[in-house]
Amino acid sequence: MQFAKPLPSYLVTRYHGWKATTYDENQGWYRRLATEGQRPRAMVISCCDSRVHVTSIFGADQGEFFIHRNIANLVPPFAPDGDHHGTSAAVEYAVTALKVSHLIVLGHSQCGGVQGCIDMCKGKAPHLEEKTSFVGRWMDILKPKFAGVADIDDEVEQARQFERQAVVASLENLMTFPFIDDAVKAGQLSLHGLWTDIGEGGLEAYDPKSGGFAPV
Amino acid sequence: MQFAKPLPSYLVTRYHGWKATTYDENQGWYRRLATEGQRPRAMVISCCDSRVHVTSIFGADQGEFFIHRNIANLVPPFAPDGDHHGTSAAVEYAVTALKVSHLIVLGHSQCGGVQGCIDMCKGKAPHLEEKTSFVGRWMDILKPKFAGVADIDDEVEQARQFERQAVVASLENLMTFPFIDDAVKAGQLSLHGLWTDIGEGGLEAYDPKSGGFAPV
Amino acid sequence: MQFAKPLPSYLVTRYHGWKATTYDENQGWYRRLATEGQRPRAMVISCCDSRVHVTSIFGADQGEFFIHRNIANLVPPFAPDGDHHGTSAAVEYAVTALKVSHLIVLGHSQCGGVQGCIDMCKGKAPHLEEKTSFVGRWMDILKPKFAGVADIDDEVEQARQFERQAVVASLENLMTFPFIDDAVKAGQLSLHGLWTDIGEGGLEAYDPKSGGFAPV
Amino acid sequence: MQFAKPLPSYLVTRYHGWKATTYDENQGWYRRLATEGQRPRAMVISCCDSRVHVTSIFGADQGEFFIHRNIANLVPPFAPDGDHHGTSAAVEYAVTALKVSHLIVLGHSQCGGVQGCIDMCKGKAPHLEEKTSFVGRWMDILKPKFAGVADIDDEVEQARQFERQAVVASLENLMTFPFIDDAVKAGQLSLHGLWTDIGEGGLEAYDPKSGGFAPV
Repeated sequence: MQFAKPLPSYLVTRYHGWKATTYDENQGWYRRLATEGQRPRAMVISCCDSRVHVTSIFGADQGEFFIHRNIANLVPPFAPDGDHHGTSAAVEYAVTALKVSHLIVLGHSQCGGVQGCIDMCKGKAPHLEEKTSFVGRWMDILKPKFAGVADIDDEVEQARQFERQAVVASLENLMTFPFIDDAVKAGQLSLHGLWTDIGEGGLEAYDPKSGGFAPV
Repeated sequence: MQFAKPLPSYLVTRYHGWKATTYDENQGWYRRLATEGQRPRAMVISCCDSRVHVTSIFGADQGEFFIHRNIANLVPPFAPDGDHHGTSAAVEYAVTALKVSHLIVLGHSQCGGVQGCIDMCKGKAPHLEEKTSFVGRWMDILKPKFAGVADIDDEVEQARQFERQAVVASLENLMTFPFIDDAVKAGQLSLHGLWTDIGEGGLEAYDPKSGGFAPV
Repeated sequence: MQFAKPLPSYLVTRYHGWKATTYDENQGWYRRLATEGQRPRAMVISCCDSRVHVTSIFGADQGEFFIHRNIANLVPPFAPDGDHHGTSAAVEYAVTALKVSHLIVLGHSQCGGVQGCIDMCKGKAPHLEEKTSFVGRWMDILKPKFAGVADIDDEVEQARQFERQAVVASLENLMTFPFIDDAVKAGQLSLHGLWTDIGEGGLEAYDPKSGGFAPV
Repeated sequence: MQFAKPLPSYLVTRYHGWKATTYDENQGWYRRLATEGQRPRAMVISCCDSRVHVTSIFGADQGEFFIHRNIANLVPPFAPDGDHHGTSAAVEYAVTALKVSHLIVLGHSQCGGVQGCIDMCKGKAPHLEEKTSFVGRWMDILKPKFAGVADIDDEVEQARQFERQAVVASLENLMTFPFIDDAVKAGQLSLHGLWTDIGEGGLEAYDPKSGGFAPV
């Protein structure tokens, strides 16, 4: 590993500042978290996008949320084929080991992954269709939902609706996992779908009655 | 999706508080992030664990880090087989689309995934060895590194060392991706390995010269 | 007081969110409460337990309930000996100064204080029997009621019944205060005994006719 | 107990509404809290005053804060004399059994208990000086601090300052408990002093460097 480099000094400086202030003021709590283990109430599945900070939006601190972040906050369908499935492993750990009570899927506006999927579905992104494109193959998970938004002429509105459908697809795929289906039916786990507008700071929740999203 | 539930009210209340303060005070920046797109300097790969907050440790704000979080901050080896690979997709997007300059893998103490892998390697976790265990199949990525820590008698020390090896394994696997190898060799991307002690607030960095970790 | 520390930043952030929303939206009422004084209809005596939120259960807002919370929602007998009596002071203030119309004692399931008293009564908690144990000496208030549940074999059922007896003991002790006896007899004050099941969200009320508790 | 009365119907109605909504949506979490026990990060000592809602100010939900409420948020000095000490029992349980990491004393404006103490100190409240006055004997805890505010001519300002001194007195008395002194020195527990202005929604924190309070 001769390629690893020292950490940029601005990050080293910030870390030492955090250690002398936030850590110092909360040392007791951090030590308890270390010795007693985590006990998060909720798991959040959100996007890797640098503009989405679920802990900030919800005023959460260390210990509150078990967070998985991937491209476009997608959950693939249940597929116990023995391969590496990072998202499925995270969900399994949260539900069966940590026994979280809430599973929140958080989508967002201006999602690059969702836009790539639209481009693929419109035949505009041949590089994403290649077998070697990890982003393309990952976004295949969302493709079946494109039919529902294909008729929207306004491209911005189409993207916003498809982003919401990414949340719905993940919720639907989550229910294909037997341990999730069991926990939901036993009243131990509830699922929640959210979508946030980065520029306007909006937050909408999926409403199972209407099948649409409404501001919280 | 008749199973989706309304968001717990304490989260709704906190969101509205965030909207009226943090969002309101930073609206101009959030709108720019929305219209101009993200431009993160670094990608961070860390664990889903609720006790690990990389943005807190580094005083980071919206737009700074593209963050992928999975169980035990693992990166699988390059495998362009056409299947869904969430971690590989996240790395590909960060390096080829966003062109981040730093790729940071952040491990941590008391990692439940790493402990599960130790248990498997010692034959103590048959349930994780089943084909249907997503956590077990995910932690297979780390198994080859166990030989290097198998002789450590002290179980706590063994776990801490194996957590650091999870970071090294991810760094090594990252270098198997051609686009990463290219970017590193072109001087466009640097890799960094970190490990944080949750209870003590420590932060250590991988040192390619010594092959070990040292406090930053 | 060199030991006092700054408030954790997540609480500061949440406070500012509250100030900009809940406070801002209710400023007129909060100002009236400040200038005209409080005029609560009821006093509630409940446990310190973090899982018991009487304001949530009853949808109560600022100004509705005067709330005293102590270990196991206990009221000691009337003892005007000149010492500090926090619970008696709270009751005296509520009844004689604020002239509340209802006095509600709210017990709950999984009460750690009640469990400690059971352990003492069974000779299993010598540390609680020491003179220096504040929890032990406080739970002495409940000891006389143990005879009524001593014969219950099922330990869970025994604890649940003893928790209900803690409510009855408090109601009985409240009636030893002359100002309460007077107010009750004058029809100005009514007493109520409740017990809530944390996990099931149940709520039972003491029925003076049967001497037992029944779901409300 | 022939005096106990049925719960007022407006509370019964509200409870059933809570059960069908908030409880139903959070059932999984409430059941976990019941079976796994509470693990609050902080204890809060605040006043019984109906206008002070610490959970609202801090956006807290079930399980976050262990809350003791008494008249004027006072903590008496350590006195292991074998008598009933409700406040000391609550503090002992929080620190030694629950091992909370933060102990927050929250004072407030327009505090009736503090005003009563001022009246006593000025010889204007002979009824509070009687041995049988529980409120008077409870407020004796604060009397030694009156010398520090006796010279303030403006009565409103004097009361506001004395309320802040009630917080300081409690912090000082907390440090007389050996188990608190030990936990603070071991870095396991931190103390915090706060004062809130009910009408204006302000929040000030005790600053050990200046010895005064400043807005958070």
